[in-house]
Amino acid sequence: MTQAGRWIAVDWRTDRAHVALMSGATATDRRDVEHGSEGVRPNAIGPALAALAGDWLPADGAPIDILVCGPVGLPPRRAVPCPPLADTPVEMPDPDPRLRVRVVPGLTQATPHPDILQGGETRIAGLLAERPEFDGVVGLTGAHTIWAHVSVGEVVSFRTAMTGELFGLLARGTLGAALAGGGWGDADVSDAAFLDAVSDTMSRPERALSTLFELRAAEMLGTGRPGSAQARLSGLLIGAELAATRAWWLGREVALVGPPGPSEAYRVALAAQGIDANVHDGAAAALRGLVAAHRTHATTQGQDR
Amino acid sequence: MTQAGRWIAVDWRTDRAHVALMSGATATDRRDVEHGSEGVRPNAIGPALAALAGDWLPADGAPIDILVCGPVGLPPRRAVPCPPLADTPVEMPDPDPRLRVRVVPGLTQATPHPDILQGGETRIAGLLAERPEFDGVVGLTGAHTIWAHVSVGEVVSFRTAMTGELFGLLARGTLGAALAGGGWGDADVSDAAFLDAVSDTMSRPERALSTLFELRAAEMLGTGRPGSAQARLSGLLIGAELAATRAWWLGREVALVGPPGPSEAYRVALAAQGIDANVHDGAAAALRGLVAAHRTHATTQGQDR
Repeated sequence: MTQAGRWIAVDWRTDRAHVALMSGATATDRRDVEHGSEGVRPNAIGPALAALAGDWLPADGAPIDILVCGPVGLPPRRAVPCPPLADTPVEMPDPDPRLRVRVVPGLTQATPHPDILQGGETRIAGLLAERPEFDGVVGLTGAHTIWAHVSVGEVVSFRTAMTGELFGLLARGTLGAALAGGGWGDADVSDAAFLDAVSDTMSRPERALSTLFELRAAEMLGTGRPGSAQARLSGLLIGAELAATRAWWLGREVALVGPPGPSEAYRVALAAQGIDANVHDGAAAALRGLVAAHRTHATTQGQDR
Repeated sequence: MTQAGRWIAVDWRTDRAHVALMSGATATDRRDVEHGSEGVRPNAIGPALAALAGDWLPADGAPIDILVCGPVGLPPRRAVPCPPLADTPVEMPDPDPRLRVRVVPGLTQATPHPDILQGGETRIAGLLAERPEFDGVVGLTGAHTIWAHVSVGEVVSFRTAMTGELFGLLARGTLGAALAGGGWGDADVSDAAFLDAVSDTMSRPERALSTLFELRAAEMLGTGRPGSAQARLSGLLIGAELAATRAWWLGREVALVGPPGPSEAYRVALAAQGIDANVHDGAAAALRGLVAAHRTHATTQGQDR
């Protein structure tokens, strides 16, 4: 363990950072910062991490351990099937003498389709730290949803769907006007619109893309259910994703790990398909995974000496 | 006919305007201006049209007829099935005394799904002016693709797919890096990648959305065919659209009307399905349609008097 057992855990997502000051396995302070890893150039990662650490940096200038998960410019390098965590995080050469930065390496997959996972491996490790016997599929929700088959402590294979990002991109185009004024609107109307859309798309998934413009047309013709366009689009896209990933979630235990909003949408959609998914907070799972990676690393270091 | 038979034809698309100074049915001057109708507020349409007309406005200040097709803030109002052109274009109240603005009204559809068409009706009229006996499906290509069933001089029904817009939006997200450096790349490689993607998606259309991230993963893993990501994404999205609209184009004569680039992509994709589509230039069809609308209107006015 490092000096006094203090270290910093960074769950660096593309759009924000969850940062925790750790004492061993316990978070003694936490920050949620709107400073995503997206667009941070490799040589700017050190300064960005120093800024995220801020006044947690030791006053005596002694370097502090920072353990990071997420897409931080380091290519993913561990091929599935494999346990979610490497024996040793990857050391990042860093110009800032106050930091010792290590990164949890991401996962790669060559077959049955090319895929990469950066950050999700740590959330899966966090789920396994809580539920070591878990055997089933993990749905990592967020801007991207990753369906990962986890068995006997290993990630067997996974599939990334860009569903949340696609929703956001569509809101910037022609459908923006129909989605504006937005939010979820009246809950009863929108919940029904969401489930109707999931059902429509799952029964005719090949039509999903070609029906998108109906949202705009219905708004202009005044025939849509007011305020329900967001719910309908969300249901369309999630329904299309569930139709395409049926082989992943059907007949297996399903754990949803991610932010509460997206996870709840998937939980409701899966419930309508007769699937009873468990929901786990993604930030908590990431922190638990970082603790596991930190401990594994500390143990390995001890053994190496 | 108006004074000296001079009028201005405006094919106002969301992203640009094709403008022609007309003498009867003949264009005596033309402009292609990057001034789309998107975002132009209703009270700014008059000034914008005056700017598009520019030095074509009569020096003596006498008002000139301007006939416009496209989404210019006027709600579409004619329900299919109906001929593509109304007997009379809609007069637009206009503050600019130098202009008499009329708009070709768009089409609406309530069943089997809500849809609207603004500008496409004029292109269909242009096709029918050239080929009065046309009976089949018109694929209006561009940022949106509209499949319109045309029979006995009427638009029977239509379906709008946002395929081109979706491509553009995806290029602004995670896939941007994979698509950059872009263009079509090496023609042989990209043509093959395009056709492979069309074929993959048409046989498993329900998977299209969920496979998008593979483009990014393949780029990061170095397993993609270099420079072919644009072609593959284009093939994925067009394949998904063709799978969803099979009932429209299968077993009917197909005419593609639009810009050369998008029309060629659809032509090649349809050819791989054994469909031999005819290609017609969209701007020429729009102008021909505007001439037909102008003539119809002039004739109607004459009969009314």
